[in-house]
Amino acid sequence: MPHRLDSREDGFPAAFEEFLGARRDVEETADRAAAEILADVRARGDAAVLDYTKRFDRLELTAGTMRVPASEIAGAADLVEPEVMTALETAALRIRSFHEKTLPGGLDYVDRVGVRLGARWRPVAAAGLYVPGGTAAYPSSVLMNAMPAKVAGVERLVMVAPTPDGRVNPLVLAAAHLAGVEEIYRLGGAQAVGALAYGTETIRPVDKIVGPGNAYVAAAKRRVFGTVGIDMIAGPSEILVVADAANDPGWIAIDLLSQAEHDTSAQSVLITDDADFAAAVERAIASHLATLPRREIAEKSWTDHGAIILVSDLMKEAPALVDRIAPEHLELAVADPNSLSERVRNAGAVFLGRHTPEAIGDYIAGPNHVLPTSGSARFSSGLGVLDFMKRTSFVACDADSLGTIGPAAVRLAEAEGLGAHARSIAIRLNRAAGD
Amino acid sequence: MPHRLDSREDGFPAAFEEFLGARRDVEETADRAAAEILADVRARGDAAVLDYTKRFDRLELTAGTMRVPASEIAGAADLVEPEVMTALETAALRIRSFHEKTLPGGLDYVDRVGVRLGARWRPVAAAGLYVPGGTAAYPSSVLMNAMPAKVAGVERLVMVAPTPDGRVNPLVLAAAHLAGVEEIYRLGGAQAVGALAYGTETIRPVDKIVGPGNAYVAAAKRRVFGTVGIDMIAGPSEILVVADAANDPGWIAIDLLSQAEHDTSAQSVLITDDADFAAAVERAIASHLATLPRREIAEKSWTDHGAIILVSDLMKEAPALVDRIAPEHLELAVADPNSLSERVRNAGAVFLGRHTPEAIGDYIAGPNHVLPTSGSARFSSGLGVLDFMKRTSFVACDADSLGTIGPAAVRLAEAEGLGAHARSIAIRLNRAAGD
Repeated sequence: MPHRLDSREDGFPAAFEEFLGARRDVEETADRAAAEILADVRARGDAAVLDYTKRFDRLELTAGTMRVPASEIAGAADLVEPEVMTALETAALRIRSFHEKTLPGGLDYVDRVGVRLGARWRPVAAAGLYVPGGTAAYPSSVLMNAMPAKVAGVERLVMVAPTPDGRVNPLVLAAAHLAGVEEIYRLGGAQAVGALAYGTETIRPVDKIVGPGNAYVAAAKRRVFGTVGIDMIAGPSEILVVADAANDPGWIAIDLLSQAEHDTSAQSVLITDDADFAAAVERAIASHLATLPRREIAEKSWTDHGAIILVSDLMKEAPALVDRIAPEHLELAVADPNSLSERVRNAGAVFLGRHTPEAIGDYIAGPNHVLPTSGSARFSSGLGVLDFMKRTSFVACDADSLGTIGPAAVRLAEAEGLGAHARSIAIRLNRAAGD
Repeated sequence: MPHRLDSREDGFPAAFEEFLGARRDVEETADRAAAEILADVRARGDAAVLDYTKRFDRLELTAGTMRVPASEIAGAADLVEPEVMTALETAALRIRSFHEKTLPGGLDYVDRVGVRLGARWRPVAAAGLYVPGGTAAYPSSVLMNAMPAKVAGVERLVMVAPTPDGRVNPLVLAAAHLAGVEEIYRLGGAQAVGALAYGTETIRPVDKIVGPGNAYVAAAKRRVFGTVGIDMIAGPSEILVVADAANDPGWIAIDLLSQAEHDTSAQSVLITDDADFAAAVERAIASHLATLPRREIAEKSWTDHGAIILVSDLMKEAPALVDRIAPEHLELAVADPNSLSERVRNAGAVFLGRHTPEAIGDYIAGPNHVLPTSGSARFSSGLGVLDFMKRTSFVACDADSLGTIGPAAVRLAEAEGLGAHARSIAIRLNRAAGD
């Protein structure tokens, strides 16, 4: 049975805090294992990677067969239904179009004392994309990870995907091909993260690693952070639906279940101002579940982690609750979704109005579906082109402008006791270069 | 004696790789200690924080005296020389002005099939600034950490700074006051990071922690990443100067020493195309050292980690070497610094021309001086307003536009075996809301 909370009850603040505190921690135990695997990959390279792949994925590879052949990548589309390929192509175009609009602009100006200042953005040289295997090997995730890197201008994209027992998903390869990813290794887990971060005899290291994975992958990414950049530590998926009684309960019910079907540790939460509507949504959930292919997963997720939060006034109460939850996905199925959205600070992505189910954003809308989970929308953003770029600032003084701003810098350097700093400026004051 | 490399020698590629590989690792040993301290702060709150402060900073505080009183913050400026305060104010204005120009714009448009798409940026609600104590308690760093947060619109700024033996630096408090930081705790180390991340009875948790620190602080930041956002894992400071023979060797020498005086593990590297000039720079370094207040630190840094790399052609060879080193600071003291700068991909900040010593960027130029170290300019940027903001994407479909893009999404959801995803879209197709 899902959690039930009611803001009109006395115990609500404490119950809500407890609900927030029950966040589903996934990591601590995997940290030690990840550390050992990373150290081994760093020390033994290919040999370690191949050993772990044999052990965890029951797959005997060699340095020569780790990489998926170009012909297999190029031929994968032939194994996919034409209608699905067309849909993937539409998705790729829409994702590319949205991400192109988010490319950052540079800055280059001369201030009023003659100092030239600015900043420019450049892509990272090489990015690694971790694509989970098994039930979570989604071609849509390949597009969502690879397209922003391509749009950013990353020259080398390396994909790793575990293929337990050797099973390769042609949809995943077809999506990679569509996104322009040509270097793909049949590796997963912490060993794949280690190979990307440190490099092996076969795999050159990358500069940044992105993409979701299990607890071992998350722990490994955290540990290699600094050697390479990482995007975020992904947790189970979540949706928060704010819905008034004017909605079709069946629509809201299936939206909640669309998140619940991802994973038994996924979380779906409904905030509404109508107890009868909440009850109708619960009945509709039961009805949908009866015919859902992933019924077991969705039902367990909804029962264990689902929640219905009843409030008196959606517009007044929902924003603060949303900000505390800081959901990955926020669906606003209300009469005036824009006003409500404006009052919200923390959310990975917002889906506005009754005709915008969250799933449209998973595939085709255009914005990225790799989004901050477990409340990290408080401080982080969904994956985007900026994750594959870095900014370099620049300054240029001439003798005159250094003469104007230099003395204050000398004074501060002296106040901080940094004599060489002070002298490096003072030595140039009132002197042309090379005097 | 600093490292000497020459690109005209046969062994250069191997010697350069070895030089890169000798990066100064600082972290691994501190990780376990940081983990224990964090767990203890999480469990015992204030009591743990006070215990560690007593042990590491030899300072007995109580929950009531952890925080620096408002009167002490407001009064600090009176203890600072007026000329230094004026210089700090100039610095604050210039830093603010530059960072305001880097505020990101939002995005909001309707595409040609009628889907509204966009993204908006919002500040994090609360940010923690770690300001190192002791010799590295720099008022300039307070400004560089706090101003971008203020410009981003962060409402609550919390500063922590260790005050070993109770010594508080009035310059640091004055800079904090100038930047609008009102909540300051006399805490440092992993315990301060833990207090900011998890909160204690006295300190409310923040959403993001920025600022440099020692190995324990770096390890603690890495471990709390996910619970809060962090900026980067800071390592020792570095400068790479690319200089031709037309420079005054004394200017280049003092620039190299301005980095070396930070810390014995700092690194200063010169790339030049003239062996006589390199020798003149070395002589000038010896001459400067004789009269530098921080001679011992600077000399040890230059001797242990300094390097002179001799090349045949600066324009042709320097860019690739720079990109491999990916320096925190890059000074281009050459005839055409713009052309050279354009060919460089990896650098935290670039200082263009003979009249732009790196130190001008430490204090007064405007761009941030908190920059990626240890080669992380390959994938990360200096601190900026974006570090204190996060992006929320949004999508709005109506019945018509969902009808246009929905079927492809249904197809992809079905191909991925996600029935509830597919149904959440299909159930809305060709139906008005609430039909």
